[in-house]
Amino acid sequence: MKDRKLILVSNDDGVDAKGLKHLVEIAKKFGDVFVAAPEREQSGKSHSINLGEPLRVRRIEREDGVKFFAIKGTPVDCVKLAINQLVPRKPDLMLSGINHGSNSAVNVIYSGTMGAAIEASLYGIPAIGFSLLDHSKDANFDLIDENADIIIKDVLENGLPYQVSLNINYPVIDKKDFKGYKICTQTKGVWKEEYEKRHDPYGREYYWLTGEFTNHQLDNPETDEWALKNNYAAIVPTKIDFTEYNTIEILKSRLKV
Amino acid sequence: MKDRKLILVSNDDGVDAKGLKHLVEIAKKFGDVFVAAPEREQSGKSHSINLGEPLRVRRIEREDGVKFFAIKGTPVDCVKLAINQLVPRKPDLMLSGINHGSNSAVNVIYSGTMGAAIEASLYGIPAIGFSLLDHSKDANFDLIDENADIIIKDVLENGLPYQVSLNINYPVIDKKDFKGYKICTQTKGVWKEEYEKRHDPYGREYYWLTGEFTNHQLDNPETDEWALKNNYAAIVPTKIDFTEYNTIEILKSRLKV
Repeated sequence: MKDRKLILVSNDDGVDAKGLKHLVEIAKKFGDVFVAAPEREQSGKSHSINLGEPLRVRRIEREDGVKFFAIKGTPVDCVKLAINQLVPRKPDLMLSGINHGSNSAVNVIYSGTMGAAIEASLYGIPAIGFSLLDHSKDANFDLIDENADIIIKDVLENGLPYQVSLNINYPVIDKKDFKGYKICTQTKGVWKEEYEKRHDPYGREYYWLTGEFTNHQLDNPETDEWALKNNYAAIVPTKIDFTEYNTIEILKSRLKV
Repeated sequence: MKDRKLILVSNDDGVDAKGLKHLVEIAKKFGDVFVAAPEREQSGKSHSINLGEPLRVRRIEREDGVKFFAIKGTPVDCVKLAINQLVPRKPDLMLSGINHGSNSAVNVIYSGTMGAAIEASLYGIPAIGFSLLDHSKDANFDLIDENADIIIKDVLENGLPYQVSLNINYPVIDKKDFKGYKICTQTKGVWKEEYEKRHDPYGREYYWLTGEFTNHQLDNPETDEWALKNNYAAIVPTKIDFTEYNTIEILKSRLKV
């Protein structure tokens, strides 16, 4: 049994999310599964970590042999603690999700699901974030149940480049309309936020976040938004180097340094 | 006065941080300053946003004319709300910090200071994050007080490429040893985390995060870590596109899509 794969699973919707249950069932086909997931929902937590306060872990026994750790922390806290303390060796693969809602385009930078996957990739662990474009609690994950294996199998066999992870988003469509996977770039654009201003019963104001995404590459078939609108699942290879290399020479010349 | 610049300032150490006070004084030399900063410390909050709960704003009157908003939210919440609701027009410049502590190398992905700057850059606002490699509350910001102007002046005059921000870290050294600015890449490497396991008085375990950075590019003079160790301030141009372009063709060929 020494070639059993060790698979770490996390998410940002918390230990009780339906998407996590589906991802665990998918992962079980490929090896021994350890789940380290947040006790409470952590959507929008990006790559945040708890500093200055300790983490607590609740261990859950499951009859199917899956080791389950519920952690009072962010998705990145879960992955860090799992890799450093909770799993018996470095995982062969890390899977994050299945997220209830989109992490395409610029959403990736706010995403706790991708925060977890990117954190695992930092340690050199091939990592995949799965997201479905449906926010509802009882979203239908059939499309991913049936189509995730081919990607997981490929990554387990061939790995990913160092510190690269995959951000995969799935459209909400009838299975018969699914056109398969498309390798994409992160769509450029910006959220046009609007805040709704209200007053509480004591006259003090507060603001609710609303808003919509403005796509700056509407007709570009290389982008993830295009793929999703055309019934593909979009795969964006994702890195952790924030350097904008093209700007280096511009600044050197401008600042004469 | 129609050519007065509008400058938005934020940070992640909270409204009472010494670094913020210094950055406001620097900013006042260049235009009308609006501060939108978190009520409480938000270190390690990365690009996280509050979803599902409203934001509250406390307006602080200052004698020097600086408009001051203290917001119960993350640094990114502060910048979003300020741009959308609190400032009279789109800012000409956004400054974040001065952070008490390093945001060099991979720290950038956990950084609330850079979360705020990157968020502003998303809206097409030139943005600069300033950090000093000293965590202490009463850190000495003299080096930045004396050297920030040249960068701010350049960015106000020449702008930055669309959705690019600057991540500037300063070493903790005697001013006489300062060698100036160096345009750098984000150093590749990884945090080797270690968690200290303890038990509370009721026998339940908890974990404290500790750890140290392992530099994978130790002798590379193009990197920000090298610059800082050699008495330069390191400027890394930073983008929000997470796409790892080099991997796209690899995956297309492997997955035959």
